[in-house]
Amino acid sequence: MITLYDIPSKLPGKAFSNNIFKARLAIAFKGLPFKTEWVEMCDIGPKMKALGADPTQTNPDGSPKYTLPVIYDDATGKCVSESMKIAEYLEATYPDKPSLFPFGTYAPIHLFNEYFPDVVQPGFIVFVSAFTDKLNPPTLEYIRRTREPLMGKKLEEMIPSPEEKVTLLAATKENFSKLDAIYASNGAGKMYFFGNIPSYADLILAANLIWIMLSVGMESNEWNAISNEWDGGRWGTLLKTLEKYNVNQ
Amino acid sequence: MITLYDIPSKLPGKAFSNNIFKARLAIAFKGLPFKTEWVEMCDIGPKMKALGADPTQTNPDGSPKYTLPVIYDDATGKCVSESMKIAEYLEATYPDKPSLFPFGTYAPIHLFNEYFPDVVQPGFIVFVSAFTDKLNPPTLEYIRRTREPLMGKKLEEMIPSPEEKVTLLAATKENFSKLDAIYASNGAGKMYFFGNIPSYADLILAANLIWIMLSVGMESNEWNAISNEWDGGRWGTLLKTLEKYNVNQ
Repeated sequence: MITLYDIPSKLPGKAFSNNIFKARLAIAFKGLPFKTEWVEMCDIGPKMKALGADPTQTNPDGSPKYTLPVIYDDATGKCVSESMKIAEYLEATYPDKPSLFPFGTYAPIHLFNEYFPDVVQPGFIVFVSAFTDKLNPPTLEYIRRTREPLMGKKLEEMIPSPEEKVTLLAATKENFSKLDAIYASNGAGKMYFFGNIPSYADLILAANLIWIMLSVGMESNEWNAISNEWDGGRWGTLLKTLEKYNVNQ
Repeated sequence: MITLYDIPSKLPGKAFSNNIFKARLAIAFKGLPFKTEWVEMCDIGPKMKALGADPTQTNPDGSPKYTLPVIYDDATGKCVSESMKIAEYLEATYPDKPSLFPFGTYAPIHLFNEYFPDVVQPGFIVFVSAFTDKLNPPTLEYIRRTREPLMGKKLEEMIPSPEEKVTLLAATKENFSKLDAIYASNGAGKMYFFGNIPSYADLILAANLIWIMLSVGMESNEWNAISNEWDGGRWGTLLKTLEKYNVNQ
């Protein structure tokens, strides 16, 4: 069975990270049994080091930096770090399961993965700062300890004002509208990046939509606008078809 | 037969515009007979209006703006403006010819078309300003008349210094290196965006490589570096396989 390492929050489903949702959805999309092992942010480094996982980045002092998602697959004895590497591992290891990379090509989805962060970028601080009061104390303290000195201010001071939020969401909406034109080029009724075939590109999008939904709140006016009004409801409709892969195991 | 409207230069092959090369390559890729009708930049508006072509943009004063490429297809009596629309028209009208959009999906290539300008953006002023002394007088005068007042300086003053060129090319190289990682994700020996299958995405890239080659000069150290050294020679190798579509007819 696959173990997915994820950061817990106070939210009912615990998971909240957009990047870790990518791996979570990819495993479920492949229909593979898995369980989650929850790791507070302060414990990721020591835990992943002990597990023998690859670091994903380098700290300013040159030491290896460990981030999630990481998976451990006891069927192969392998640890894989970083969401795209995990998706590629699952595709290569379980080729008989539904394909995350249809047509056997990887570049279009790598391009999507490179492009997509810029779409969300204007709203990133809105979404990420909304999680402050939803994190468990050890993770919140870790973020304060590592981020506040870098930013020169307290987390609470990074939360945009209501007016700033409106501006940042409007800029995000404009970027989504460009992505809508890209999806729309496939033709009416074709919901996915590859037309009628869902792929890891759509899961990258869905992971971020779930993260945005948890951030602004499922019952909020913002989520209603994003999922039902932006781009003729494209994003809410697309997410509905993929939400079955949003599972905690 | 298809007529392609293109802007001539003093270069041996006359064509120089990256955007018009996209259409030129797409028509040749489809194996369709065509002829070029050369239009100096100052004549594009009146000529395209008379032809009944769609404008592609709007001038600041609200009037329609006409740009090339435009094609006229006498087999269907249709005029099509704008490179992506031309590619889609060719695909829909000549589906039995080699496919510009393999797998029947359009979004991956639309994404590529949206992403690619940012790759070249740092070097854009280097490449575009190198054409100043290669343009015919009517087009050069038109550009001076329309661009210099907007920029508040003469074309010659927009040419980057040798030091600036080095910096701008280094930034362009860095962006190409990200694109290299995207292409490389398909695996060793897979040259194209869709692996072994060339598509309109690769033609967008080739059109820009030809434009860069004409700008810096085929025999220059810069082109040698870009085509043979950047990213292990990926771009020069890719262009070589597609250069047969770079035809003047």
